[in-house]
Amino acid sequence: MKLVPLADRVVLKQLEAEETTKSGIILTSSAQEKPQEAEIVAVGPGGVIDGKEVKMNVEVGQKVIYSRYAGSEVKLDGKEYIVVRQNDILAIVED
Amino acid sequence: MKLVPLADRVVLKQLEAEETTKSGIILTSSAQEKPQEAEIVAVGPGGVIDGKEVKMNVEVGQKVIYSRYAGSEVKLDGKEYIVVRQNDILAIVED
Amino acid sequence: MKLVPLADRVVLKQLEAEETTKSGIILTSSAQEKPQEAEIVAVGPGGVIDGKEVKMNVEVGQKVIYSRYAGSEVKLDGKEYIVVRQNDILAIVED
Amino acid sequence: MKLVPLADRVVLKQLEAEETTKSGIILTSSAQEKPQEAEIVAVGPGGVIDGKEVKMNVEVGQKVIYSRYAGSEVKLDGKEYIVVRQNDILAIVED
Amino acid sequence: MKLVPLADRVVLKQLEAEETTKSGIILTSSAQEKPQEAEIVAVGPGGVIDGKEVKMNVEVGQKVIYSRYAGSEVKLDGKEYIVVRQNDILAIVED
Amino acid sequence: MKLVPLADRVVLKQLEAEETTKSGIILTSSAQEKPQEAEIVAVGPGGVIDGKEVKMNVEVGQKVIYSRYAGSEVKLDGKEYIVVRQNDILAIVED
Amino acid sequence: MKLVPLADRVVLKQLEAEETTKSGIILTSSAQEKPQEAEIVAVGPGGVIDGKEVKMNVEVGQKVIYSRYAGSEVKLDGKEYIVVRQNDILAIVED
Repeated sequence: MKLVPLADRVVLKQLEAEETTKSGIILTSSAQEKPQEAEIVAVGPGGVIDGKEVKMNVEVGQKVIYSRYAGSEVKLDGKEYIVVRQNDILAIVED
Repeated sequence: MKLVPLADRVVLKQLEAEETTKSGIILTSSAQEKPQEAEIVAVGPGGVIDGKEVKMNVEVGQKVIYSRYAGSEVKLDGKEYIVVRQNDILAIVED
Repeated sequence: MKLVPLADRVVLKQLEAEETTKSGIILTSSAQEKPQEAEIVAVGPGGVIDGKEVKMNVEVGQKVIYSRYAGSEVKLDGKEYIVVRQNDILAIVED
Repeated sequence: MKLVPLADRVVLKQLEAEETTKSGIILTSSAQEKPQEAEIVAVGPGGVIDGKEVKMNVEVGQKVIYSRYAGSEVKLDGKEYIVVRQNDILAIVED
Repeated sequence: MKLVPLADRVVLKQLEAEETTKSGIILTSSAQEKPQEAEIVAVGPGGVIDGKEVKMNVEVGQKVIYSRYAGSEVKLDGKEYIVVRQNDILAIVED
Repeated sequence: MKLVPLADRVVLKQLEAEETTKSGIILTSSAQEKPQEAEIVAVGPGGVIDGKEVKMNVEVGQKVIYSRYAGSEVKLDGKEYIVVRQNDILAIVED
Repeated sequence: MKLVPLADRVVLKQLEAEETTKSGIILTSSAQEKPQEAEIVAVGPGGVIDGKEVKMNVEVGQKVIYSRYAGSEVKLDGKEYIVVRQNDILAIVED
């Protein structure tokens, strides 16, 4: 059982607290939006969305910082996921 | 008696609580929007909507996670349905 | 004396309570918008509206579920009507 | 002294209460917008408005139902007028 | 010293109270916007504004009814002016 | 050390109170936005901004009336500046 | 470990208080948005964003004044960063 995102949506799996500590990343948040670190587990096909061509620039396995402002949380087979639009991903975290 | 959705609208039938338990899906919700699991029972024709060509990418019978934020609930012949726009469907749930 | 809707507007006549009961339809409403069942009594010509070509896809006599959120109520010759945009019609109810 | 509306604006003269009673029209209003019956006394030239071509589809002398939500009231030579955009006119009332 | 409006802006000089009385115009206002009578003293060049071609259709010396909702008041050499966009002018008042 | 504005931004230096008095300009403000007189000290390059070609029509040294609604105040080397978009400049003040 | 911004996003590193004092820059803020001085540490690739071609006009190492209104704060390897869109950068500070 898996989530297949539509359009420009991306399914994220939030990194565990211990993993976050290991990489030395601590996220603080402004009042406007709460950035989050997560790993990409599924990427939508992109295509024409709201009349505009959207190309997907992220890949499964990348660690990203995203803005959770518009994200939706889902629990599937006991695991938690977040579904965001690609545009809610701020940056990729590279080692 | 059935619902024939217009434009990019999709008619959903929410999955029963026991069905949800069987598949191991538990939905949690952020303050922004409440994602929901449901089955597609009717799909609108798409076409030019608000001046933009919209192609329908979902099919009757698919199980989907949707954002109920803009959905409308309807009861027909004793059954409850939700009418959403295709864009309110976040992901398809595949076995 | 009759209402001739402009642009993409549609004139609706709400179905009576007894009629609603006969067809077994009971409408519940979310906090966002209140869907309603009604019969179409007049359809505007469509055309270029706000710079976009709008084609009318509904016909007089169809029973529809609409979102009353932006509708305007009018009383004419003792009968009540609702004027909505075509886009506020969610689905057609077919027997 | 007269009002010459600009762009897609239309000058309306509200029908008197006795006239309204004679035609049997009683207007009720939702919380969102208050529809009104009025007679058109002047029609703007249309043209390119906000980058979009607008064609005027109403004529002086027509009785119309309009949404007063964005209308502006003006008194000229002791008479009251309402200036609306054509798009705020919902329907023409024909005998 | 004079004001040279940019883009689609128009500089207005409000008509004096006595002048208003002489012409028999009394302005009432809805809660939404307060229409006002004024004389045009300067007209911007128009041109491409926010990506859209805007043609100026008003002239210095015309008396107009405008919506003061977005206007800015300025005092220059002891005289008061209002700077509005052309689109905030509802109608020209002709004798 | 100087500010080089990006895109359609313009750097303004507010005119001193005594200077304002000398030119006889007193600025009053509506509740909506507070117009201000200032001198242009730097002009951005314009170009394609938000998908639309923007041409800069103002020059360094011009005195302008602007709407401070969206402006940002900056202090550099002990002097105060305001950074606005060109579109927030209402009119040029000419002698 | 580093942040690779997506689309038109830019990663900023806020200048230290002592550095700010040395350059004589003191930032005051209006109620609308709080401008900030920072150094650019990473620049996104630009490209087609929301259907519009965006070209990046800033470079790593530039000192900029930005509007923090929409920015997201991130801590990585014990250092704090701010991720903004290029459009939130108001001006470059040159020596």
